Amino acid sequence: MTATDPARTASPAPPSDLMPTLPGRYYTDPAVFAREQERILESQWFCAVRSADLERPGAFRTAAVGRESVLVCRNRSGGVRAFLNVCRHRGARLCTAESGEVRRSLQCPYHAWTYDLDGRLTAAPNMADMPGIDRRERGLIGVHVREWLGYVWVCLAQEPPSFDDTVRAAVARRLGDEDAVERYGAEGLALGRRVSYDVAANWKLIIENFMECYHCGTIHPELTDVLPEFADGHAAQYYVGHGARFGDGVAGFTVDGTEGFGRIDGLGDEQDRRYYAVTVPPQTFLNLVPDHVIVHRMFPLAPDRTLIECDWLYSPGVVESGADLSHSVELFDRVNRQDFAACERCQPAMSSRAYRDGGVLVPVEHHIAEFHSWTAGLLGEPAP
Amino acid sequence: MTATDPARTASPAPPSDLMPTLPGRYYTDPAVFAREQERILESQWFCAVRSADLERPGAFRTAAVGRESVLVCRNRSGGVRAFLNVCRHRGARLCTAESGEVRRSLQCPYHAWTYDLDGRLTAAPNMADMPGIDRRERGLIGVHVREWLGYVWVCLAQEPPSFDDTVRAAVARRLGDEDAVERYGAEGLALGRRVSYDVAANWKLIIENFMECYHCGTIHPELTDVLPEFADGHAAQYYVGHGARFGDGVAGFTVDGTEGFGRIDGLGDEQDRRYYAVTVPPQTFLNLVPDHVIVHRMFPLAPDRTLIECDWLYSPGVVESGADLSHSVELFDRVNRQDFAACERCQPAMSSRAYRDGGVLVPVEHHIAEFHSWTAGLLGEPAP
Amino acid sequence: MTATDPARTASPAPPSDLMPTLPGRYYTDPAVFAREQERILESQWFCAVRSADLERPGAFRTAAVGRESVLVCRNRSGGVRAFLNVCRHRGARLCTAESGEVRRSLQCPYHAWTYDLDGRLTAAPNMADMPGIDRRERGLIGVHVREWLGYVWVCLAQEPPSFDDTVRAAVARRLGDEDAVERYGAEGLALGRRVSYDVAANWKLIIENFMECYHCGTIHPELTDVLPEFADGHAAQYYVGHGARFGDGVAGFTVDGTEGFGRIDGLGDEQDRRYYAVTVPPQTFLNLVPDHVIVHRMFPLAPDRTLIECDWLYSPGVVESGADLSHSVELFDRVNRQDFAACERCQPAMSSRAYRDGGVLVPVEHHIAEFHSWTAGLLGEPAP
Repeated sequence: MTATDPARTASPAPPSDLMPTLPGRYYTDPAVFAREQERILESQWFCAVRSADLERPGAFRTAAVGRESVLVCRNRSGGVRAFLNVCRHRGARLCTAESGEVRRSLQCPYHAWTYDLDGRLTAAPNMADMPGIDRRERGLIGVHVREWLGYVWVCLAQEPPSFDDTVRAAVARRLGDEDAVERYGAEGLALGRRVSYDVAANWKLIIENFMECYHCGTIHPELTDVLPEFADGHAAQYYVGHGARFGDGVAGFTVDGTEGFGRIDGLGDEQDRRYYAVTVPPQTFLNLVPDHVIVHRMFPLAPDRTLIECDWLYSPGVVESGADLSHSVELFDRVNRQDFAACERCQPAMSSRAYRDGGVLVPVEHHIAEFHSWTAGLLGEPAP
Repeated sequence: MTATDPARTASPAPPSDLMPTLPGRYYTDPAVFAREQERILESQWFCAVRSADLERPGAFRTAAVGRESVLVCRNRSGGVRAFLNVCRHRGARLCTAESGEVRRSLQCPYHAWTYDLDGRLTAAPNMADMPGIDRRERGLIGVHVREWLGYVWVCLAQEPPSFDDTVRAAVARRLGDEDAVERYGAEGLALGRRVSYDVAANWKLIIENFMECYHCGTIHPELTDVLPEFADGHAAQYYVGHGARFGDGVAGFTVDGTEGFGRIDGLGDEQDRRYYAVTVPPQTFLNLVPDHVIVHRMFPLAPDRTLIECDWLYSPGVVESGADLSHSVELFDRVNRQDFAACERCQPAMSSRAYRDGGVLVPVEHHIAEFHSWTAGLLGEPAP
Repeated sequence: MTATDPARTASPAPPSDLMPTLPGRYYTDPAVFAREQERILESQWFCAVRSADLERPGAFRTAAVGRESVLVCRNRSGGVRAFLNVCRHRGARLCTAESGEVRRSLQCPYHAWTYDLDGRLTAAPNMADMPGIDRRERGLIGVHVREWLGYVWVCLAQEPPSFDDTVRAAVARRLGDEDAVERYGAEGLALGRRVSYDVAANWKLIIENFMECYHCGTIHPELTDVLPEFADGHAAQYYVGHGARFGDGVAGFTVDGTEGFGRIDGLGDEQDRRYYAVTVPPQTFLNLVPDHVIVHRMFPLAPDRTLIECDWLYSPGVVESGADLSHSVELFDRVNRQDFAACERCQPAMSSRAYRDGGVLVPVEHHIAEFHSWTAGLLGEPAP
């Protein structure tokens, strides 16, 4: 994922050879997955929670980040904080619900140790008898937090990598322009629909699937109707800055090509009637169309299991109006189901001797090799 | 668990510092659990079966002791015998039922090898053709047995530790008096109720929970109503010989403080209107109140799963009379459910980096450290 | 399983001593099972699919062979081919159904790579842009195939062992005659019934059970009614060429001894009114009676789980006539259920310390030791 790849700035003739994928064990070996949890999911910036889901001070969400449960909450001054979801006393989960709201503090339901919304230990039964307790030292273990595009990104590393050089750079590199994504104003959009998917496949299969469109002609009839150029297999992500153009008779990014909603404020003409897909490794996908933004957050749970939360975001007026979103949502919901079924079909074969040395990437999939190199590099292994 | 700890003979001011617990991996690592099975559950005395559940000769029960299924039965002369529940021929489970009754012998349902109730091989098809079979050598593999307090304790070690120096001493040390427990005459009580709990937590979390009362104010409203001194967090087990006194308006050890049953014969006044909790590691809890005795037997099945069988024992006259036991049973049944929910809340956090080095024990929990040392010692590891 | 064992050519007095079985870990250790998958299930000839289940060109079946899914299909010229069921591009399972029929080719449903029925890559989207693709090199990975007795046997080894010296020799050795099995004309019989069993036991327990009849008197009342000599525990398989004779009042091999169907054409008088059981390691059993043939194919899935597919085969006329097969099928269906329950009873005890060094074989089970030696030999371990 180097920032400059001249081959991708225009439409060069793609190379005609095949490239290797990662070997099968990367998708099945618990030891590889454990290393990925440690060196990727718990070390890179991870898109955990939608900011607006933490409406008021005291609102919290829990998210599975690598091997950890992370508690994300809004503090009294309106900021966002994130902590390991573990009481410092005897290790009880502080919050077991996926979401909720407390008044002023987080209290462990086992022995009533109490933390404020910035994680400081503020009270515990018999605390007066324990002058030796350092309230700060015994506070919740915080994790790094950044907000961008309306989402809370967390990083469990002691020293996080640069957010700009990783997350923002990945988006800019794909769109060819640092500001392109900002024009969608995702942080100001409203949640129209959220769908969760429980996929029996390794998270990297899902990324590889999202990165290429060689499969579009085979499994995505609705999508190729809307975006005819996808039918020939060239993924939008192959070319820097390229967005797939809507078909001539297509009125909107909907399951049947009927009209969607008004163009998001601030969007330029050059972004109109186009679909941009952006992969932000390790676990976020952005999908940008004129009238909405779709955000996928993946939560890898096991070598062969990944939860995916997918948000459809619209201008607040659209959501407030109670407009019927179903044609709009159904297009990518179908695409998701088609994709995840394909990934689930690959997972069992990853342990076959036929995939011991991996498969092959055809020319229009060659950019996936960059993801493989990025993964292997973080795991401290040679690229395939 | 040394017998003499002067700090616990009276009510000294507890120390004000925090002590470490065991590190998280003790509660999650399959290798630690395997060592615990070998060096603790299969090496210490294990409270397996209630003696009176083996009413007549031929009655049997099976129990999960460490990695083994143990078959406990009453022999022709009324004694109790215990064996590994495995036929010596081709390894079939002899008895798959949890309990049952045979007439004169235990017969394997696969090839009909037949053993008497003392484990000797007595018959097998075609045995006449096998003069080489030594019936004693091919008998069931026996395990050591002791009866005490109306229960059958088994030990799978070749050379069991002294029953007196381990089981009886643990009880005496807690009660401050070798005879105190005998006065409840548990072996003469009748079973009023048995409840089984399937708990998604490591067995040691359940012991630690039982040993302290720092959580009582938070999760046990009914219990602290009956035993007001528990509200301030001082576990009865902290002080040698101390039993928590019933509240002034409390008539009995019942869920609503209403009257229970008559005092057990032989109980002294000093034991009246008091609750004594006794931990007998590795897997037994005794609860002594004037009108009944509650016995918990734990059966650890996996690092994160423990079955618990809890017996409520009353004077035979109480049970025979058909008296309504529900108020009496409901108090500790609620306490059990509250406790086990707390333990299940801790289990998933044991694998968090936040618990990598364990949590802390507050002063009123310091006696738990003795259990940690005992465990670490048997596992051949340094105490935390 | 040496071909000449003079002790088995007649009815010698069996030895009176006991012999050891394999130690318990052979039945529970995932590492042993992994070695068995590699060195036995994926290296020996494996009876995978019934030939007639692949009726026309394009018909396919999938079978679990060791760790692999194998796709068996009939090609355009009527031959049988078998491949690893994995697309060479990105590793999708080609066929997820257990059976089906395609027209001319096998097409991967992910990116539409297309293979002919001999496994050659014939088409792929954008293939014209990929002059570098060698269609043969990128074809499906084939596995060795043999047809015998109406079944497709596959071998995943690079260099398969001799089919004659292993599969055919095992049958000839048992029946004492190379041609005896051929007289049943199994390849010309029709499928009357197929029953699948999901057994919670190691595959070797199931083989050991099938090889001996010491258990028949205990668990197979219907079978010993039909074959009285089984009641005394001497397995038919103990003696070369011996078939257990039907009881005097028995009319046919049915659950109640009532008449079965006409003798299979070509069968000699010496094979009439007799039952022959044949074990073909690692995973096939043949059962030969005058009017039908029963074939068990085992599919070991885990150390403690084995799927079994059992076919009852009759003369085509019998099946076409719509005759009631229930009395005929029910006899061995009951035997199967009785046997598999016994095996499931043994599985949990395999991990007991009581079976750490295994159990014992009585004299009439001594021939099982040959299977143990065969297994240990293929695993590269000393025989027990």
